[in-house]
Amino acid sequence: MIIVFEPKATEAQVQHVFERLQEWGFTPVLQEGEQISIAITGDSSALRTQTLEAFDGVQKAVRLKEAYKLVSKEFKPEGTVIELGDVKIGGKKLLMIAGPCSVETEEQYVSTARAVKKAGAQVLRAGIYKPRTSPYDFQGVGERGFPWLKKAKDETGLPLCAEVLDVASIAKTKDHVDMYQVGARNMQNYDLLRALGKGGKPVLLKRGLSGTIKELLLAAEYIMSSGNHDVMLCERGIRTYETATRFTLDIGAVPVLHHDTHLPVIVDPSHPAGKRSLVGSMAKAGVAAGADGLIVEVHPEPEKAWSDAAQQLTFDQFEQLMAELKPVAQAVGREL
Amino acid sequence: MIIVFEPKATEAQVQHVFERLQEWGFTPVLQEGEQISIAITGDSSALRTQTLEAFDGVQKAVRLKEAYKLVSKEFKPEGTVIELGDVKIGGKKLLMIAGPCSVETEEQYVSTARAVKKAGAQVLRAGIYKPRTSPYDFQGVGERGFPWLKKAKDETGLPLCAEVLDVASIAKTKDHVDMYQVGARNMQNYDLLRALGKGGKPVLLKRGLSGTIKELLLAAEYIMSSGNHDVMLCERGIRTYETATRFTLDIGAVPVLHHDTHLPVIVDPSHPAGKRSLVGSMAKAGVAAGADGLIVEVHPEPEKAWSDAAQQLTFDQFEQLMAELKPVAQAVGREL
Amino acid sequence: MIIVFEPKATEAQVQHVFERLQEWGFTPVLQEGEQISIAITGDSSALRTQTLEAFDGVQKAVRLKEAYKLVSKEFKPEGTVIELGDVKIGGKKLLMIAGPCSVETEEQYVSTARAVKKAGAQVLRAGIYKPRTSPYDFQGVGERGFPWLKKAKDETGLPLCAEVLDVASIAKTKDHVDMYQVGARNMQNYDLLRALGKGGKPVLLKRGLSGTIKELLLAAEYIMSSGNHDVMLCERGIRTYETATRFTLDIGAVPVLHHDTHLPVIVDPSHPAGKRSLVGSMAKAGVAAGADGLIVEVHPEPEKAWSDAAQQLTFDQFEQLMAELKPVAQAVGREL
Amino acid sequence: MIIVFEPKATEAQVQHVFERLQEWGFTPVLQEGEQISIAITGDSSALRTQTLEAFDGVQKAVRLKEAYKLVSKEFKPEGTVIELGDVKIGGKKLLMIAGPCSVETEEQYVSTARAVKKAGAQVLRAGIYKPRTSPYDFQGVGERGFPWLKKAKDETGLPLCAEVLDVASIAKTKDHVDMYQVGARNMQNYDLLRALGKGGKPVLLKRGLSGTIKELLLAAEYIMSSGNHDVMLCERGIRTYETATRFTLDIGAVPVLHHDTHLPVIVDPSHPAGKRSLVGSMAKAGVAAGADGLIVEVHPEPEKAWSDAAQQLTFDQFEQLMAELKPVAQAVGREL
Repeated sequence: MIIVFEPKATEAQVQHVFERLQEWGFTPVLQEGEQISIAITGDSSALRTQTLEAFDGVQKAVRLKEAYKLVSKEFKPEGTVIELGDVKIGGKKLLMIAGPCSVETEEQYVSTARAVKKAGAQVLRAGIYKPRTSPYDFQGVGERGFPWLKKAKDETGLPLCAEVLDVASIAKTKDHVDMYQVGARNMQNYDLLRALGKGGKPVLLKRGLSGTIKELLLAAEYIMSSGNHDVMLCERGIRTYETATRFTLDIGAVPVLHHDTHLPVIVDPSHPAGKRSLVGSMAKAGVAAGADGLIVEVHPEPEKAWSDAAQQLTFDQFEQLMAELKPVAQAVGREL
Repeated sequence: MIIVFEPKATEAQVQHVFERLQEWGFTPVLQEGEQISIAITGDSSALRTQTLEAFDGVQKAVRLKEAYKLVSKEFKPEGTVIELGDVKIGGKKLLMIAGPCSVETEEQYVSTARAVKKAGAQVLRAGIYKPRTSPYDFQGVGERGFPWLKKAKDETGLPLCAEVLDVASIAKTKDHVDMYQVGARNMQNYDLLRALGKGGKPVLLKRGLSGTIKELLLAAEYIMSSGNHDVMLCERGIRTYETATRFTLDIGAVPVLHHDTHLPVIVDPSHPAGKRSLVGSMAKAGVAAGADGLIVEVHPEPEKAWSDAAQQLTFDQFEQLMAELKPVAQAVGREL
Repeated sequence: MIIVFEPKATEAQVQHVFERLQEWGFTPVLQEGEQISIAITGDSSALRTQTLEAFDGVQKAVRLKEAYKLVSKEFKPEGTVIELGDVKIGGKKLLMIAGPCSVETEEQYVSTARAVKKAGAQVLRAGIYKPRTSPYDFQGVGERGFPWLKKAKDETGLPLCAEVLDVASIAKTKDHVDMYQVGARNMQNYDLLRALGKGGKPVLLKRGLSGTIKELLLAAEYIMSSGNHDVMLCERGIRTYETATRFTLDIGAVPVLHHDTHLPVIVDPSHPAGKRSLVGSMAKAGVAAGADGLIVEVHPEPEKAWSDAAQQLTFDQFEQLMAELKPVAQAVGREL
Repeated sequence: MIIVFEPKATEAQVQHVFERLQEWGFTPVLQEGEQISIAITGDSSALRTQTLEAFDGVQKAVRLKEAYKLVSKEFKPEGTVIELGDVKIGGKKLLMIAGPCSVETEEQYVSTARAVKKAGAQVLRAGIYKPRTSPYDFQGVGERGFPWLKKAKDETGLPLCAEVLDVASIAKTKDHVDMYQVGARNMQNYDLLRALGKGGKPVLLKRGLSGTIKELLLAAEYIMSSGNHDVMLCERGIRTYETATRFTLDIGAVPVLHHDTHLPVIVDPSHPAGKRSLVGSMAKAGVAAGADGLIVEVHPEPEKAWSDAAQQLTFDQFEQLMAELKPVAQAVGREL
């Protein structure tokens, strides 16, 4: 952190800030020169630039390094590889998570599990709880779906990824799923993040609709600092003024995240696309940009789906997508 | 809802959609003309346009009315007036909620309570839990602050408004505060909203950083449909590309909300301002635009505040703000 | 400008930047301390932080002051008052510019001129050129409207404000209008800005749909540095994700601009509103926030308007708006 | 266009709209049913939904088809292939436009021309005019650069692509360049677009910082309807709240544009990246998403560049990028 004073700042103003910093337990160093400044030695992550700029005489406070600790590249330069049974996430082989938006019926679910397994997916979406904008929309089958999840897993061997909406569901689903997903609306639900930090299973953390990359990383920091280092970050489109797509896939977030953190980065092409004809291009872009995996919605009869009908792929479309993704993965030195 | 078919849509395609709608329990009406369309009689709030547009032959599905029920102006054309002790929210008299961003110490809190009471505030902020972007930032004093809350209330008689971050806190704070606040990050934390619907106290629901007005209203619908009709909506600035202010105060949301809903609308000028020199203009704009109240951050020594240092007003500044707001309130037919 | 080096930057890297700055004609000053930095004495407005951050060893370059010169508050702390005939813009009395979106016919135009004059407007909109998103939309009556402009001015004495879309129109309209408007789409049409800098008439410069406040000020700097200091800045709503209003009126821009510049600030409530029922609230908010004037669309029969039909006020509505605005203006120490 | 009336709309209100539409020259067809509506037969592109929604009794006006004519896929389903000398744009082979952000000196320019030619580029950037946010920034070498352009072209045979900022420059550069570029700030400079419609050379039209896909297509419609059908559309990143990249590359725009129009789509990875380490990922994503070409900034010594220093690639980096792009192009059935 560097705090730069206005040219006309008085000695007393500088002194005042200096002493306050000492009181707060920091080690300020005065830097004289054309414009007087104070540098802070050591960790200043708890200080906010806004707080410093509220002092009289301060022109600008500049954070030189983000407040990332456990998520930062420096913490683990070699990159994290998460193990989920036999699946390794973050290595050369790309992760493919697939399945329906919502678990609806046993038949719908188990048939989808078989189809995505056959096409090459390694993890199965297990959406039994659905966060919905309107209280009158379908809210998921809930625990009623547990036997169907079991059947799908028994038949295919695919580990299950379930979104949890609240702390209570973590315990409820503990024995029924293999990894958790935090949806976009809950990226800053800190209560939930802390509980997942103690949840003992890998977490797929989705970026909020208007979450910055920095906020996404600090949300991951909540999980990691609570004890769980198996976190995947998911770019799923952000909210912008453009309405031609459901959300704007921020493809640049992929290399930015790979630069800032050691955590694996997953791209969700289904939600930004909003309709199935756009999913393929976005999926290929995600792989080409360097994503470590994708999460894709697949349904036996999308038009009958209880949620996200327009963006789910049919079995055939998913199989074709997998075939198209293979050469793109190879082109960037990965495998699918 | 009207579903318009493409000019070249086949009869079979139209028939297919018609039957599906009937199966789902709706009452479709075929409308022939230049372009065939299907209108849906009665409540179609559970249908998504996206689902309908996924059918072959459909050109566009148009929702003619939003899925609002309890929040809608039609439900209560005369407007809601919430009673909080002697305070009436939504009537001629404007509501002024004030107090520090965070409860820090007994002295800081009680002195602020006295000052804002004296200046004319009717409700006291009681921020004991703080949602913070970084896990390493100050997270609020928590239950440790209960005695200070009591003392402040005993001395001033002001009812207390506390943000709750999770379901558990509702029960914990039940006997200590008078109304709840849902922060911007939690606008779509449905678990929390439902619990507040049964919480028995008025709720101030803040708009999310990238929440649409429609989503804000549907979030309120979650609370109301769970049993609690005492909801205030709060415009507190949205996230845009502009960084000259902390957030962009969407002043147009005030008349839009007054058009769509009977619920009181509160403006928070402190968070969009981000620095105290901008709070006054935004507060006056909020009142002039028709807000039913304001929520403002006040601190005995803002530069020492543990959070939001730059945007909190001093006691003197708050007193001056109240003086400046009075004639603006009168100019638009309100009282302060 | 301060350039901060990484803790591990080598002496050679620092030396390299230092010399490059000297070559470029700046006066760098080395500041040693916890983290080495270089401050630049004197004017560094031509340097971009991005350029500096491209050097090896540089951690961050921070501009301490924006590159504003002529537009800056420092340049003219007392505030600019523009004289347009008898009208004074930027003083205690608020400016009211009103008139139809487009000049359509003689009768439509002259009747509107009379009505807005009667209601208290001081300047008349004179939209003869219309920038339109589609080439197939009505593009304005063009020079054909000159006689109608003359008649309206002769009858009412109101000075005329016309949007110009290109350099050629400045000369063409020279003898027919009294001030120019730069529309939102042209905020960064530098060719046009420079020409208006030599145009000899006051300019109302509208903020672009996604223009930052900084870019707006630098656009004004283009006009001023070309010789014309009579510039008004106009906040007219920015493009965000919210679609409930046509644009999001950035009300916070009013106090920010008043802080940064001496130029008068005008608010356009018509375009962000998008429909007439919202214009009043936004207009009042603009005045309460401290705007020096408003620009409002008025039409004899809005539903027949050739452009912006939904947001234009009728004569009666405009008269009522003026009546409602008066007490708000007084409440903030202004006159209307 | 379909105009749906409110359930309580009176017959007189419906009749009124019907007659007005006839007066305006449209062919309205009344559609009775659950909710009365009026469909408009034939071309209704000149009508705005906003205008219709301003009538009493109208609940919603819905455009069923966008107002695209010449740019629409229907107009030319087979896709446009633009010929620029030997270069074919829009076919199987991808277009690579490369070169410095600004033409600076003869040596800088000619050496870059040689390097990008050698690496496989087919068109050379020829930035002699530079639109700059501040009037005090470097504004391009202007016509002084013509001899350098000639030399570069003579040596390499590469056709030249130059941004034009105003109508006058089209004539000035006519004999010196081979295709024109419209920069993001000028996407809606209709005067310029119309002039380019008569300019006789292919045009690369960049999307505005906050331009919607629809506005981009209508801007192209301006050029095409003025006589020039050789238009390429360029996605170059949009302005959002995220600041980790300079702009947010809207990768989803590529498939959306390919769906809506027959015009070739070019991706600019340099401007959204903002720094060279991110250019590669974005370039690969662009190709994988289906772009017909890329435009990339290359400079002999980026750190000495007079503009966009941080995002330009060195010669070696560009050569490496070309090598990395080849397999990605092949993976999606294209050549580079």
